[in-house]
Amino acid sequence: MDKIDKIKPRIFKGTRDFLPRMMIPREDIIDTIRRSFSRYGFSPLSTPAFEFIEILTGKSGSEADKLIYPLSYRGGKTLALHYDLTVPLARVMAQYAELPRPFKRYQIQPVWRADRPQIRQGRFREFVQCDADIVGVGGALADAEIIALTADILGRLGFGISEQKYLILVNDRRFLAGVVAWAGIYPGQWLAPVCRALDKYDRAGIEGVREELTALKLEVKIIDRLMRVFEDVPADLRARSGQAKAKELLDNWADQLDFDEEALELNGLFDAIAGFGVPDDTWVFTPWLSRGLDYYTGPIFESVLPAEPHIGSLTGGGRYDGLIGRFGKQDIPATGTTIGIDRIFTAMEQLGMLRKASCRTQVLVANFGDETLRFELNMVAEFRNAGLATEIYLERVKLAKQFKYADKLGIPVVAVIGPEEASRGLVKLKWMDTGVEEIVSRTRAVYGLKEKLAIRDA
Amino acid sequence: MDKIDKIKPRIFKGTRDFLPRMMIPREDIIDTIRRSFSRYGFSPLSTPAFEFIEILTGKSGSEADKLIYPLSYRGGKTLALHYDLTVPLARVMAQYAELPRPFKRYQIQPVWRADRPQIRQGRFREFVQCDADIVGVGGALADAEIIALTADILGRLGFGISEQKYLILVNDRRFLAGVVAWAGIYPGQWLAPVCRALDKYDRAGIEGVREELTALKLEVKIIDRLMRVFEDVPADLRARSGQAKAKELLDNWADQLDFDEEALELNGLFDAIAGFGVPDDTWVFTPWLSRGLDYYTGPIFESVLPAEPHIGSLTGGGRYDGLIGRFGKQDIPATGTTIGIDRIFTAMEQLGMLRKASCRTQVLVANFGDETLRFELNMVAEFRNAGLATEIYLERVKLAKQFKYADKLGIPVVAVIGPEEASRGLVKLKWMDTGVEEIVSRTRAVYGLKEKLAIRDA
Repeated sequence: MDKIDKIKPRIFKGTRDFLPRMMIPREDIIDTIRRSFSRYGFSPLSTPAFEFIEILTGKSGSEADKLIYPLSYRGGKTLALHYDLTVPLARVMAQYAELPRPFKRYQIQPVWRADRPQIRQGRFREFVQCDADIVGVGGALADAEIIALTADILGRLGFGISEQKYLILVNDRRFLAGVVAWAGIYPGQWLAPVCRALDKYDRAGIEGVREELTALKLEVKIIDRLMRVFEDVPADLRARSGQAKAKELLDNWADQLDFDEEALELNGLFDAIAGFGVPDDTWVFTPWLSRGLDYYTGPIFESVLPAEPHIGSLTGGGRYDGLIGRFGKQDIPATGTTIGIDRIFTAMEQLGMLRKASCRTQVLVANFGDETLRFELNMVAEFRNAGLATEIYLERVKLAKQFKYADKLGIPVVAVIGPEEASRGLVKLKWMDTGVEEIVSRTRAVYGLKEKLAIRDA
Repeated sequence: MDKIDKIKPRIFKGTRDFLPRMMIPREDIIDTIRRSFSRYGFSPLSTPAFEFIEILTGKSGSEADKLIYPLSYRGGKTLALHYDLTVPLARVMAQYAELPRPFKRYQIQPVWRADRPQIRQGRFREFVQCDADIVGVGGALADAEIIALTADILGRLGFGISEQKYLILVNDRRFLAGVVAWAGIYPGQWLAPVCRALDKYDRAGIEGVREELTALKLEVKIIDRLMRVFEDVPADLRARSGQAKAKELLDNWADQLDFDEEALELNGLFDAIAGFGVPDDTWVFTPWLSRGLDYYTGPIFESVLPAEPHIGSLTGGGRYDGLIGRFGKQDIPATGTTIGIDRIFTAMEQLGMLRKASCRTQVLVANFGDETLRFELNMVAEFRNAGLATEIYLERVKLAKQFKYADKLGIPVVAVIGPEEASRGLVKLKWMDTGVEEIVSRTRAVYGLKEKLAIRDA
């Protein structure tokens, strides 16, 4: 092939290469998430990377227009890369009558956004989106199950202990609509802008929200009432977590406000969350939680690490009953969550929860020479048959270089079969971290290593 | 959200939606392959879906030009979707000096080809490519390891038994060059077209190859000599499989021909394949195997199901020492294989090797009503904690409808806690295939189901 060494090897800003030391923990995270999805009865779906543009942008074009990468295909622009997995889900629901209702699906695929990337804030042009949704049923049970799923995932990833313990914030758009009405304005008109204002709380605090509400030119009396959602925010939100505190706080609101039905719905949600076994200290009714996007219609939720506020939410979602039925004549209720793989990775990295490794190999069999090669290959086959991740050094070079390779990649054990060991059915095992060496029979090596590596990796 | 029900829900020809009944076995296949990759010491790599066009097409544009989908980005066309994972690997090797040598990587990502799709022949515009390569070492040991990896994967997928048993065809481009020279023409000029002609054997048979060679306007004497690669092809290739037969056949050629060095290389390859423990009846030295692509420089191999010739090769690869170093000044040796996920899926489907399921759920807990809900949710939590994939029916509808849902999705067990069972700490389990019902304590249900489902799914 022609050399093209004048072309600089590089990638587009906002896209990423994941080398093994990044990709191994990412794969582990995604595997853990997928196991939770399965345990909760969610099934995998995959859709094409590109869709017809009209599918993505709707009839007349929309906000989405700015986000999409169109493909140039035979001169026309009829196709574009998807920018989320929700529009494809809506299309799929309209296209395949055979799908069950409820349809519980997960989907883990890259999506692409043509906006300016903000690498520091973790906004990329290409990123892996991981969504779980329940389509086709309304009612709090489905929302509670999404919350239970979130708790299961975060717990199994290791966010269930001590300082890095997660907290799931829970609220309901209909509750917020009740507050907006009680404050003296018409929710239909004001719910969305008030939600966007409340959504600034994370970054700008209570004063920031007040400024946002003031900018909406609302009366001070109305603003004061809206700000009541922040009343008595405890310094540590966990002090108000769990079912009993949630119901108590809701009761207080229900006494003042006039929205019995919404309160009942939230009571049902709280009961179901507890019923699914979500630990009381991992979720909290958060009256100000609003989530910026306009399409939510019921319960909303997001999970945070209170001890690491600058990371932002790890997961987020809610009920969005108006979106999935767009391609058909009838509305289809839906609720779901996004699992933020990048945020979870960053949090685990910062909290020292990731095992650092450039490979998964557990044993490197050294390559000593022609004489011993068949013993070495046989050793490799036996280790692999026993389920040990094994490599043989693929060139005949000095042993020092082979040890250096094991060291660089973080391979814990090197097995050496020199002529002496070969003739006696033995193998020398060297543990790279301690430098300890042992000479054992090759059968013993297989079972001994399997045991010791299992303990080490537990 | 606005209704857009005038837009027809559809996808672009040559792209595919994978609904759960397709996606579940695909995920299982990919998981099995990934476990083999890890056991063989390969590490995951991921690269962006799109690259700068100059990276994909080289200096002056090329064949690749016709295959790529450019993106329209702010008017310009500087980016395009990758059409394979080899060019990105070459870029990565040039871009990151930190990578180890040898670098053993696998990469499983969608790729896109802008040619006309042939759905019946399994050619799509979007498909998942699954590659494993060893970069940075020459020598037969690396090639043999790729062959051993292939055997491991196909064995673990279930292609190791009886009629559907796989067979890995093995040859070497340098051996073919020796044959071309011996036939009386200059390999440097004729190797590629002769290989492309031999490559027609699969579809067109021996006579088809002769026609292809005739079309090259070669002398009959030369053609006759080239056709010697087909000498003594046994009706069942497996009759010539394994190390001893491979060496015998190579010896016969070496006697006539004048290419000691290449013969020696192939002997080393055969020894290493056997050394890695690849079963003798799963690989065969196939002197006519040529593989159409021009870039191979050493051993080549592909795996087939001899009993199902119309499916084509399940995997294919070889050594390609000139490609990976393209972006740098130095050549970088490389060998590897593609695992054809789509072909493997088709073969497993046709051979009845896939478990048909629309979901992975093992138990559906029925939703009986308000009174029993907390018992039902608790049962769900206990099943899930025990590792059973569990759903609760998320709406309160007639039990008959809930059973129908379980039936449609292939969920094997439905657990019912009516008021009677609720008050006595019991649960009724109904097996959907036999209709057998049993009423047991809820603790017994967890362990009993775990045991029975494990046996059933074994």
